Amino acid sequence: MSRKLVLREDRFFDPDPRTKEIAMYLYKQVANLPIVSPHGHVDPRMFADPDYSFGSPAELLIIPDHYVFRMLYSQGIRLEELGIKRKDGAPVESDHRKIWQRFAENFHLFRGTPTYIWLEQELHDVFGVDEVPDRENAQEIFDRIQQCLETPDYRPRRLFERFNIEVLCTTDPATSTLEYHKAIMESGWQGKILPTFRPDDVIHIDAPGWRESIDLLGERSGIDITNYRSFVRALEERRSFFKSMGARATDMATVSAHTEVLSDREADDILQRALHGTASEEDAARFTAHMVVENARMSIDDGLVMQWHVGSYRNHNALLFERFGPDMGADIPVVTEFTRSLKPLLDRFGNDRRLTLILFTLDESTYARELAPLAGHYPALFLGPPWWFHDSLNGMRRYFDQVMETAGLYNTVGFNDDTRAFPSIPARHDVWRRTSSNWLGGLVVCGVIGLEDAEEMATEMAYSLPKRAYKLI
Amino acid sequence: MSRKLVLREDRFFDPDPRTKEIAMYLYKQVANLPIVSPHGHVDPRMFADPDYSFGSPAELLIIPDHYVFRMLYSQGIRLEELGIKRKDGAPVESDHRKIWQRFAENFHLFRGTPTYIWLEQELHDVFGVDEVPDRENAQEIFDRIQQCLETPDYRPRRLFERFNIEVLCTTDPATSTLEYHKAIMESGWQGKILPTFRPDDVIHIDAPGWRESIDLLGERSGIDITNYRSFVRALEERRSFFKSMGARATDMATVSAHTEVLSDREADDILQRALHGTASEEDAARFTAHMVVENARMSIDDGLVMQWHVGSYRNHNALLFERFGPDMGADIPVVTEFTRSLKPLLDRFGNDRRLTLILFTLDESTYARELAPLAGHYPALFLGPPWWFHDSLNGMRRYFDQVMETAGLYNTVGFNDDTRAFPSIPARHDVWRRTSSNWLGGLVVCGVIGLEDAEEMATEMAYSLPKRAYKLI
Amino acid sequence: MSRKLVLREDRFFDPDPRTKEIAMYLYKQVANLPIVSPHGHVDPRMFADPDYSFGSPAELLIIPDHYVFRMLYSQGIRLEELGIKRKDGAPVESDHRKIWQRFAENFHLFRGTPTYIWLEQELHDVFGVDEVPDRENAQEIFDRIQQCLETPDYRPRRLFERFNIEVLCTTDPATSTLEYHKAIMESGWQGKILPTFRPDDVIHIDAPGWRESIDLLGERSGIDITNYRSFVRALEERRSFFKSMGARATDMATVSAHTEVLSDREADDILQRALHGTASEEDAARFTAHMVVENARMSIDDGLVMQWHVGSYRNHNALLFERFGPDMGADIPVVTEFTRSLKPLLDRFGNDRRLTLILFTLDESTYARELAPLAGHYPALFLGPPWWFHDSLNGMRRYFDQVMETAGLYNTVGFNDDTRAFPSIPARHDVWRRTSSNWLGGLVVCGVIGLEDAEEMATEMAYSLPKRAYKLI
Repeated sequence: MSRKLVLREDRFFDPDPRTKEIAMYLYKQVANLPIVSPHGHVDPRMFADPDYSFGSPAELLIIPDHYVFRMLYSQGIRLEELGIKRKDGAPVESDHRKIWQRFAENFHLFRGTPTYIWLEQELHDVFGVDEVPDRENAQEIFDRIQQCLETPDYRPRRLFERFNIEVLCTTDPATSTLEYHKAIMESGWQGKILPTFRPDDVIHIDAPGWRESIDLLGERSGIDITNYRSFVRALEERRSFFKSMGARATDMATVSAHTEVLSDREADDILQRALHGTASEEDAARFTAHMVVENARMSIDDGLVMQWHVGSYRNHNALLFERFGPDMGADIPVVTEFTRSLKPLLDRFGNDRRLTLILFTLDESTYARELAPLAGHYPALFLGPPWWFHDSLNGMRRYFDQVMETAGLYNTVGFNDDTRAFPSIPARHDVWRRTSSNWLGGLVVCGVIGLEDAEEMATEMAYSLPKRAYKLI
Repeated sequence: MSRKLVLREDRFFDPDPRTKEIAMYLYKQVANLPIVSPHGHVDPRMFADPDYSFGSPAELLIIPDHYVFRMLYSQGIRLEELGIKRKDGAPVESDHRKIWQRFAENFHLFRGTPTYIWLEQELHDVFGVDEVPDRENAQEIFDRIQQCLETPDYRPRRLFERFNIEVLCTTDPATSTLEYHKAIMESGWQGKILPTFRPDDVIHIDAPGWRESIDLLGERSGIDITNYRSFVRALEERRSFFKSMGARATDMATVSAHTEVLSDREADDILQRALHGTASEEDAARFTAHMVVENARMSIDDGLVMQWHVGSYRNHNALLFERFGPDMGADIPVVTEFTRSLKPLLDRFGNDRRLTLILFTLDESTYARELAPLAGHYPALFLGPPWWFHDSLNGMRRYFDQVMETAGLYNTVGFNDDTRAFPSIPARHDVWRRTSSNWLGGLVVCGVIGLEDAEEMATEMAYSLPKRAYKLI
Repeated sequence: MSRKLVLREDRFFDPDPRTKEIAMYLYKQVANLPIVSPHGHVDPRMFADPDYSFGSPAELLIIPDHYVFRMLYSQGIRLEELGIKRKDGAPVESDHRKIWQRFAENFHLFRGTPTYIWLEQELHDVFGVDEVPDRENAQEIFDRIQQCLETPDYRPRRLFERFNIEVLCTTDPATSTLEYHKAIMESGWQGKILPTFRPDDVIHIDAPGWRESIDLLGERSGIDITNYRSFVRALEERRSFFKSMGARATDMATVSAHTEVLSDREADDILQRALHGTASEEDAARFTAHMVVENARMSIDDGLVMQWHVGSYRNHNALLFERFGPDMGADIPVVTEFTRSLKPLLDRFGNDRRLTLILFTLDESTYARELAPLAGHYPALFLGPPWWFHDSLNGMRRYFDQVMETAGLYNTVGFNDDTRAFPSIPARHDVWRRTSSNWLGGLVVCGVIGLEDAEEMATEMAYSLPKRAYKLI
């Protein structure tokens, strides 16, 4: 017999009755606040076409979600069996019912993981499924979701409204035409979908396809990129375009938090080597470190909030990268150092309140040791929410535990869902709202804060902090 | 007046009544399952001789247990006073009643430590002691244990049966004749004591006595080790012998997680230098890093599970090492890096499901940052239980908290007791079964998993995971 | 309407009724024990003058407290607006009522931080304030505190007695005349204020003003410092003087835990270069690493306890350092390594029970990995309490969780308040006594220790451990 999805009303709260009561009281005040999603990877295309369809349940929930398929892969299921496209075009499973069956039969692998929690709520609240997927009920659940997806109520725009999303920020390459954002604006639909400027492809001179990205950047900006000066001008031009299209923020990702200030001459020398294909690994590292600082300088000029995600070793699995490309669930965190690494950047701009620099880490040992003390001191520095693997019940608890006492709540910025999986957005924000209510409830019960303070803090965490930090007001 | 040993039936469970109730319910289902002990350091000799005796209480519980005497030593009691043998043969305390008295008088030093917990249960359940050792009752408890040890019921084989151990794996050097395992097999006794192949003495070319170990390896394998090729053949021969004697796994220990693939030529060059006594420190590090990968290759060939313990700086205390030798409680953990270090190995074999690589760390900061993401992705990689200092109530809690959400339960392998202290085995497994039941109970109460899932998971953690991972089925 | 300060009698205890009951029971036994403050930064001058006044509320609670103003600064309030003196003498806010108003209006920034907890108790218990500072009540609270400060009851000596402080150790440069300590001794007042020898200014050859400090050291010791030998003699002379003035301990602070034994010749070569202004950065690092070991050697000779604070990157904010000087809330922790770094020191003196070396870290990842195993083994090594940013509810919980199982309680030394803010001392010790009672209560409820053991341990933690470790008996 299949098991029922539980989704208890009081889930994720501490069992202590008094804590649970206060947590629940706080949660009820924020549970239905509009969703502010200032950072994520939803494809804007789905909102440009009013009739966009998500395809099959496997296309919606398995094939594009590396959280899901990496766990199945870790237990010996080949990606081909899950319908993941190979770069060489070799055949992969195309029967989405079979893919779904494999997923359902292995659903136990997700027990206790955030993926389970998100899927559970998504299946139940979005699609009306009330059983845990398993061998027996797999096809029945497939049918149910498939039927939903075929109705107009499951078009992305309708879900956006149903999810009560106030604003959703996408992440877009510096060279994007933002055509879908434009189409959305011109369509008359009222949903607020804002672009975010992400120049990773052009500032990492060792990125695959960098030369082509630079050419495209030149084309899109109308500036012939022949030296460092024109490179910077092209970036500024694109930022200005993004800003005109509603962007509030930029984003970048680096493996290390190293920052360094190069002279224009040094920067130009490296760029010239890169343009001639002779740049070294050290060149790339120094240029990136410099561009982080330069990015902060531009943010001071144009007011775009600066997001920075540090510490992910991308595409760690060489075989999968070769066979399937990036984003195969093999981005693995590395040790990160901030205190010394950020000093060149903070020496320049850390005291400048015109800059809002939001930092994300995958190395939790830096929470209490480095990031909370830095964010609790520098006016320009804010700490982003727990990221990636740490966007979980325990990840959030550790973040509250290790960050808040030193950084103070007001040097943090609420929550990011950071997802490509659009229908999981309500579940992800719900987990945050529950865990933050529970954290605050615990503080009230232990006499650390009063209930009125907790009420204000709950609203800040669910709604106001991200709106202020990302200038979405 | 002496204090009573407490050993409450509900010990180590959360005080919340509902959590405790479910934890207890789960615990009762696993408490009496047979013990699977896939990794440890019990001396097989004690099972080869049906009349083997443990000696005095001090010989059983103090002299061989560096967990115990290192704590006494840290508070100023000299090892000589505890009867630890000196390498120079200088006299040490030989009155075991005096040693026991010192131990009992300082028993308060163990308050709140896992050693206390294990000793408490061992004293009570194995020897029927019901008081906390102290100055007054020391000799009385000594008598009680001594009397037990003199009876046939306290022969190792009888305890093995009483402890309900289904299988116990020892750890044996690559050059071992496995004579005791052979004697056990031939004795007709049914206890399952399996060897584990540990080549540390021969693959670390900077290990003390390496040359002698190589000679012995040559002798035991019947292969004259003159170059890298014959070295590898000799190892393969020994693995094959171990396998024929029932071994399911290998084990190795390194300070760093560095892996590297040398060409046969490079490997041979280093080995030649080692054989001529001219190898450098760098040679040793590279050769070890290479042999880790080579070990994985052999495991794919012969199916032996590969265990790898990383990050212990052995014999940190120079004075004690010189005076008493190794294993004096001075093996201290060091920072460990896995993400970059394992890449050469994982690039070769990480996707190969024929390999089962079980990793152990002493650096808990790698749990959530590196190991859980790696184990939650690579098909060949599994994460071993909390090791050494972390084999404790809080160590287990931190492991559950930091590993499970990302790795998923099914990429872990249950528990290892890892002990030389045979009579402590039931207590150690009991702590694991209690803490894992408590962890699962907490997940049920918080609505993360359902009760039926928790029941399955509890059995996996106590019994099935290690059996499958170590191919003990 | 302003909010009331709460200060519940049962604050900071776990909500579980049974845990709370036992925690409260334990707390009541230690709450009123005399305060032993073996390490801190209170200015001895305030006890030398019986009529010393703290000045205005802003001078007492804001201007000298970088915990307070760094948080306000992080949210965009300039230090000048808070009355912090600039080095260039440029005008800063001098209206203390305005400073206080800014502080009160931003009091919400401290929610959930230890600063809030200390201030809350200080305002309530010391000054009889019963409202949370805010925009409306700011001036009223200012008046209240100002009135208190003007009465004789608020002279430091009277507060010292009211706070029930048994002994308070200050921290004093090696070159100090200890004139205030002398004045206190000669005044006939019975308060026990002991100096601590801190040679940082003279052993870090790269410290600002090092040459002047060396000249002063020569002057104060009456020894002409021309080489390493006379340098050591001068230090020994000063230690002897401090000891004669009641000192029980020394203290030093370094960024790294590196230790190294230089030959006298090497040490002299470096010192000569330093005296001639030609020492390199490496010279400075090696000389410091050597002087740590030398410091341990001196402690063995003269019996002074050795404290060592590792891992703070001082004055990280270049702009603030230039404009305002040190101690502006910009000392940021860095990653620290102990296992390998301490080996040269421990090889020399780690087994020598005449040495008491108390280590402090800001890198919590070293608690369970390195420091607890080291302190749980080496007779000379003890672990200091959670320091700086970790001197908080969660910081203490993490310390208990990660240290105690491996180090054992008796290799720790109780609590340090480490504060310059004299009136916050009772609040800080109260937080420690509450959290340690709660930790012990949790152990009792979970069946890890018995209640009688917990009672002894509570007294050790609140009172006896520091007295023994710092030889204050």
